[in-house]
Formats: sequence, structure tokens, C-alpha cells
Amino acid sequence: MNYKAVFNIVARILLVEAALMMLPLIVCILYQEDPVCFLIPIILLGLIGGFGTLTLKTDDKIYSREGFVIVALSWILMSVGGCLPFMISGYIPSFADAFFETVSGFTTTGASILTDVEALPQGLLFWRSFTHWIGGMGVLVFIMAIMPLTGIRSVHLMRAEVPGPTKSKLVPRMKDTASLLYRIYIAMTLIEIVLLMLGGMNLFDALINSFGTAGTGGFSNKALSVGAYDSAYFDIVIGVFMMLFGINFNLYYLILIGNVKTALKSEELHWYLGFIGISTVVIAINISGIFDGAAQCLRYAFFQVSSIITTTGYATTDFNTWPTLSKAILVMLMVVGGCAGSTGGGVKVSRVIIGCKSIVREMRRLLHPRAVESVRLDGSPIDKRDAHAAMIFLSAFFCLFAVLFLFTTIDGYDLTTSATAVLACISNIGPGLELVGPMGSFAGFSDPVKIALSFGMLFGRLEIFPMMMLFVPSTWRRT
Amino acid sequence: MNYKAVFNIVARILLVEAALMMLPLIVCILYQEDPVCFLIPIILLGLIGGFGTLTLKTDDKIYSREGFVIVALSWILMSVGGCLPFMISGYIPSFADAFFETVSGFTTTGASILTDVEALPQGLLFWRSFTHWIGGMGVLVFIMAIMPLTGIRSVHLMRAEVPGPTKSKLVPRMKDTASLLYRIYIAMTLIEIVLLMLGGMNLFDALINSFGTAGTGGFSNKALSVGAYDSAYFDIVIGVFMMLFGINFNLYYLILIGNVKTALKSEELHWYLGFIGISTVVIAINISGIFDGAAQCLRYAFFQVSSIITTTGYATTDFNTWPTLSKAILVMLMVVGGCAGSTGGGVKVSRVIIGCKSIVREMRRLLHPRAVESVRLDGSPIDKRDAHAAMIFLSAFFCLFAVLFLFTTIDGYDLTTSATAVLACISNIGPGLELVGPMGSFAGFSDPVKIALSFGMLFGRLEIFPMMMLFVPSTWRRT
Repeated sequence: MNYKAVFNIVARILLVEAALMMLPLIVCILYQEDPVCFLIPIILLGLIGGFGTLTLKTDDKIYSREGFVIVALSWILMSVGGCLPFMISGYIPSFADAFFETVSGFTTTGASILTDVEALPQGLLFWRSFTHWIGGMGVLVFIMAIMPLTGIRSVHLMRAEVPGPTKSKLVPRMKDTASLLYRIYIAMTLIEIVLLMLGGMNLFDALINSFGTAGTGGFSNKALSVGAYDSAYFDIVIGVFMMLFGINFNLYYLILIGNVKTALKSEELHWYLGFIGISTVVIAINISGIFDGAAQCLRYAFFQVSSIITTTGYATTDFNTWPTLSKAILVMLMVVGGCAGSTGGGVKVSRVIIGCKSIVREMRRLLHPRAVESVRLDGSPIDKRDAHAAMIFLSAFFCLFAVLFLFTTIDGYDLTTSATAVLACISNIGPGLELVGPMGSFAGFSDPVKIALSFGMLFGRLEIFPMMMLFVPSTWRRT
Repeated sequence: MNYKAVFNIVARILLVEAALMMLPLIVCILYQEDPVCFLIPIILLGLIGGFGTLTLKTDDKIYSREGFVIVALSWILMSVGGCLPFMISGYIPSFADAFFETVSGFTTTGASILTDVEALPQGLLFWRSFTHWIGGMGVLVFIMAIMPLTGIRSVHLMRAEVPGPTKSKLVPRMKDTASLLYRIYIAMTLIEIVLLMLGGMNLFDALINSFGTAGTGGFSNKALSVGAYDSAYFDIVIGVFMMLFGINFNLYYLILIGNVKTALKSEELHWYLGFIGISTVVIAINISGIFDGAAQCLRYAFFQVSSIITTTGYATTDFNTWPTLSKAILVMLMVVGGCAGSTGGGVKVSRVIIGCKSIVREMRRLLHPRAVESVRLDGSPIDKRDAHAAMIFLSAFFCLFAVLFLFTTIDGYDLTTSATAVLACISNIGPGLELVGPMGSFAGFSDPVKIALSFGMLFGRLEIFPMMMLFVPSTWRRT
């Protein structure tokens, strides 16, 4: 383990976090709120980060092991730093609560321990939602986009932070890939802000909702989430943008360079849109007794499906009261999640595809034992190792679920609450069902469960393995 | 597809079923009940089976494809034949109900649509439980044990019917392996019958409970299941025997030939006993508020853990009222199931081991990308294909769960009822939680859901792929 290089990069992350906290500080000052809850963390993170960056010499000896550790440690320390404003301000005094809320922000989960979100000052609300936006594309990717890092090491960072079974560089240089991703991300966020404001939303709310959408996070500054606006226009804009942010960003790059045909041919895109289309129609029919007319049913069904499959977690109505079939579909979509290379969580559509195709292939193999065939995606065969790794990920996901589920039931809530709370955390969705439904909160869980669920979110966001590495002694051995 | 050979063997199965129905017929006559409900099916199955066996010429051209189809078709037709006594007698007049009950018997699930089991005559109760015993070891294995079939074809039948990721022949000849398995099975069943009768149970009840235990089925002739006897002795005998029938039968063979050391070294055995031990202790502590004293808690916890992990489904108390943690542990054990090569269902302990070890191996691969390592079981490396197939099976299991779960929620019951009903069926357990808990029944589901769940049981018992083959057009192509 190359400790110096690891801590140098982690220190840079804290420095970047201090810089990013300037924005909520400005919001604080504009709204004439007490800025001290941001000033102290900015100074603290600045000092620690600056000291680490300057004193620890870095070199290029960063391999996959270091990559995983850097990413995992950064996300944990960033969350510890990020929860300071909540604690210092006194609005979320308990560390377990503040850590949960901040991890939920950075991991773009959107699960909240707040029971009265509207009581928070604007500065804190801004910071809470801004963490979604930072975490959506990833802070390591951000650092890569703005800082000079040589190629060899950044590929390992990228691999650990960007979700999906296969990672492709858009352009040869990692820095350019990272910068391209961020430019697409920023442009799409801006378009959404403008569209929301054109519909009459004020700038602050437009920012909050766009941050939540772009990161597929789901934090809102309203108790009723997006339902508070009760506007078909906002539902459609946010619903469509959630869907767009759940698509692999590589496709946007392809479209930008004029390769629209290849982008539209993406199998993952077809499955993703297929899941959304079918689920929307079935749920719309299933909830026809609750809303008036097909248009209303489709509006509420589409918004919720888009919100859950992308793992955003916004709500326009309390889907906890919907019929069992609709709830069951939503629970299934919670597992599926967004596309690889998007800001969405879950196991990712492409892994579901690989899983399904592997089952079909296994049937063929059983029927014709001598035929050798590999699983194909977008017309070309998938590397056997990648296919196998995708299946192992699915198993790891269910193991993670099982362990956290058992731990969570210690608090004694019903099975649906416990199971969906865990799923909502590890898939980075936010709300679950019953007590943690869209109108509920995670406030009732005990501190150990809140900490465990926070780690569950981190495991989910970083796709399990980087976090697991931290708990393996051989990771820490010097080389 | 070698149609003639397929239908010839299926016809033999029906002939065997007719022969096996003689036993409940005798019970009928002994208890002076109306024997017509057994006479008609015996004549019908005898005619169809005899005609098919005599007219369809068989040859040796049976490959894996034919093996899968024979096994899948046999199980379906056997269940259709087996439900005739229930329908003819008028005790279960609806086909969906009778089919569900019979499939539940043969697949050793033990889920019931009966709301008053004690109202059934002895002959039907005997047949209902006897199906467990037939299905536990498998009727194809039975045929192999008694009929002359050449080696090449029986290996394909065995592979499709005996559960577990890897199938090993005990002895070179398939017929001898099958016969050995049945002799161990019969001997263990007899010992249990004797032990139960020594404790004061009458012969009929001892038969019923031993059939249910041996097949890890779970049908009882009492509304309160094993809890009706309220006897610590019976709880311990049945609890221990359930555990024994959940162990890979290969180990008993090893013990019989004096190779006790190798048998006790089995990793699957260690994990299996580990799961049982840890779950029993945790649940016993968790339910200490419900029962008096540690001994009582351990008694009820052990019985339930043994019943659920082996997928038997007997109950000595209504575990539906236990704390959430205990219920969550039981739900997890429902997925795990028994050992490979046992009469238990679920995904099998060995697949859980392979899954866990693959995750660890993946971590090693990520840390040291150049190291090539394979997953090891019992000291020797597992074939990569087998490891991959085990992972695919886990995915297929969850797909099956997802599809059936969505379908079952159409009936509108709560999520826990729907989810555990499906799990209880595909893992061949029997009771789930809430409305399908140990004191509930599957009677409330609609006919389409009952039929779907029946197929779920068949998919689970035959480990998914043989049943899936039936729905693939290329299976039916002539060669």
C-alpha cells in the first residue's frame, strides 16, 4: 500500500470539499443566516487538506489496490466533513443522524432522518442537496477533470468510482474523459434549472430539485417532495430529467460527436426504456381506482417509475398506499436501478441483462453441451471474466442485503419496513415502504442501525468491492 | 427430441404411480373408507402407463435434452395423476386446489390449501403425506433403482432430478447408486418411525410424520402440525431427523463404507451445521420473552430452524408471532435450503458457499489482477464452469422469485404474505409468514395464482432448468 499517495489524494479531496462548501456559505450570507456552521468546516478541511497535500509527496505508484482505498476512504472522510455544518448549526446535533444524512446526500440516496425538513435554513438545505450533485458524478472524477494526474493512476480511480460492469474511456486521456462527463452533467443540470424556472419555480427551488434530479438523489426542501408543487408541468420536467440522468453518459457523448445511430442502438437503453414503459403502463392500470382518468394515472405512474428505477426517490404522491402489485413492481425496480455509467444506483440495467442472457446461455449449454457460446451485448461478446464478475456482483449485492437486513430487524420494525429500508439504502434510492415510505423517515431507527445503513449506502454507491477492500487486512500490507 | 423414448419412460412413471397408490388403497380398506377414489386412478394410470410402456419402443438415444424433458414431464403428469383421489373423493373438488396440494406433496413443499386438514379421511391423508416420501428422493431415481436402464441414459435423468450444483455417482453403476440412495432413505425413515412409536405415537401418525420429515415435506395430519403433540421428545426426534435428511446422502454412503473421516470433513456439512447452530442460538435469545427458560427457547428455536433450513415446514408454534429478527433469520434460511444431494430444497448450502467464496475470490482478483485462483471446495478447486453455473442458478432463482412475486401480488395480499408465499413455494418449504404462516393456508389465493405457485414448486424442486426447457421451442425439435 502506497500510503503517502493515498493520503495525498484524500487530502486533496478534503481541500476540494472545503472549496465546494463556499457555495452554501454564499447562500447563507445571501439569506442572512449564521455562516459559522460553514466557516468552521471550511477552515478545518482547508487546513487538514492543505497540510496533507503539501507535506505528503505523491508518486505514480497507484495501482488498483490504492485506487479502491482512495475512493473508499475519500467517500467516508468527505461524509464526515460534510456532516459538520448540520452538527455545528444544531439542526442535526447527533453524529449518527448527521452522518446518515450526509452519506445519504453524497451517495445520492436521499433517505432522510429529518421529520420536518422545512424547518432547516436555506444554507443547510442548499448544502444538503448540493451533496447529491457532487456525489452523482463523483468527486474523484471531478478532481480528475480539474487536476493534473497522470493516466496510469486515474484509470484505477475511475474504475472504482464510476458504476457499471464495464468501464470505457470516452477519449484516450482520462482527464479529458472526466472533463467531458462533467461538462455534459453541468449542461443537463442547467437546462433542467431553466426549464423549471420557465414553469414558474423560483431559483432556489429549481436548484434544489435539479441537484436532486441530476445526482438521482431525491432530497427535497418540501415535506411533500415534488408533490408539494402539484403541477403536471414540474412532474413531467423532473420525471423526464430523472429518466435522462439514469442513462449511460457515454451515449450523450456519442450523440455529441454525431454518432446518434450507435447511441440509439444501445441494448441497455432499450431494456431501460422497456422497463420504464411496461412498469408505467401496468402501474397506471393498477392505480386507476385512485386517480381520475388515464392521463392522471399515467402522470403519477411515470413519475414514480422514473424516480424509483433511476434510484432518485422523489415522490408526487404516497405510493405506500398503492395496490400491492404496484408496490411490488417498484420494489423490483429498486433492485434494477439505472444504466451503467449514469448517476443512478441499484445493480444497474446492464447487469440485469447479463444475468438474464447468462441464464438463457446456460439453457443452451445444457441442451447442446458441446456448443461454446458467449453472452453478447450490443452485438459483441462480453469477456467471460466480465460476465462472471457481473454475476458475482449480483451475489454480493444480495449478501450485502441479507447482512444489513438481519442487522436492521434488531430494531423490531416490520419486515417490509426493514427490508425496503435496506434496499432503499444499498440501491441509493431513499424512500422504501411502510414506515420509511415517501411520507415517512428513517428517524426511528437506532444509532447503530443508522450507521450500518450509512455504510450500506456507501457500499451501494461504490459498488461494494471498494468498500469491502477496507476490511481486508491484506489491502493494508506495504508493498 | 426422441419422442418415443421420452413417452415410454413417462409411461413407466405413471405405471409406478399406479403401483404406489396401492398403499393408500390398503389404508382406505383398513379404515373401511370408500376406496373408489383410489381405484379409478389406479386403473386409469395403469391403463395409460401400461399401454405407453408396451407400445412405445425405447432405445438408448437419451441425451441431456431428453433427460430434462422426461423429468419435467414426469413430475407434471405424476402430479395430475396424483390429484385424482382428492378430486374424485370430493374433498378437494377444484382442480387448481387438488393440483396445488399434490404438487406441494411431490415437490416436498408442504404448502396446503386445506383449511381443516383433520376432516380428511385416513386414506387421503396417507396419500397426501406419502407423496412427500416419493418426491423426496425422486421417482426417477426410484425407477432407476428398480428397473434395468442402461448407464448412458440414467446419468442424464439423475442429473436432472437430484438437486445440487455438482452430481457425483456413489458407485460406478447408476442403478447401484440409485438403489443405495433408496436403501439409506428407507432405513432412516424406518428408524424415525420406530423412535416416534417408542415415544408413544401411533403407527399412522408416525408414518405421516416420518414421510413428512424424510422428504423434508411438512404435511401433517394435525391442524397444529407437530405442535399438536406438545411433546419435547417428538420435537427433538423430528427436529434431529429433519436435520439429518437435509444432509447430502453421499455422506451417509461414505459413513457406511467406513470413510467417516472424509464425511465429517465436508465443508458443506460444516456450513450447514454452522447455519443451524448460529440461527438457533440467536433466535433462542430473541424469543426469550415468549417462552419460559433457556431449554424451552432452544427447543422451539432449534425445531423451527431445522424445519425451515431443510425446507420441511413443520411448526411447533406460530413463528409468525415471533420478533422481526427471528422471522428475518427464518426468511434467509428459506433461501439457503438444505445440502446438495439431500431431500431439502432452496438454493442449497453448497451454492451459498460457492457464492461467498466467489465474492472473496473476486476481491483477491481486484487486489492482485495477475493472480489466477479458483474457488475451492473440500480442498479441491471447483471447475470454473460449475462455479459459473452455480452463480447463474442463483440469478435464475431470483428471476423466478421476481416473476412469481409480481404475479402473486395480483391477488392484492400484503407484500410479506406475497413474497414469503412465493419463497415458501419455490424453496419447497411450505409455510411462509402472515396469511400463509404456519397456522394459515394458501386457500385464499385465486386459481391462476395457485397454478402459478404450483409450477413455482416444480421449478424449485427440479432446480429451474429442466422445467424451463419445456418452454423453449428448440427443445422439441426432432434430431
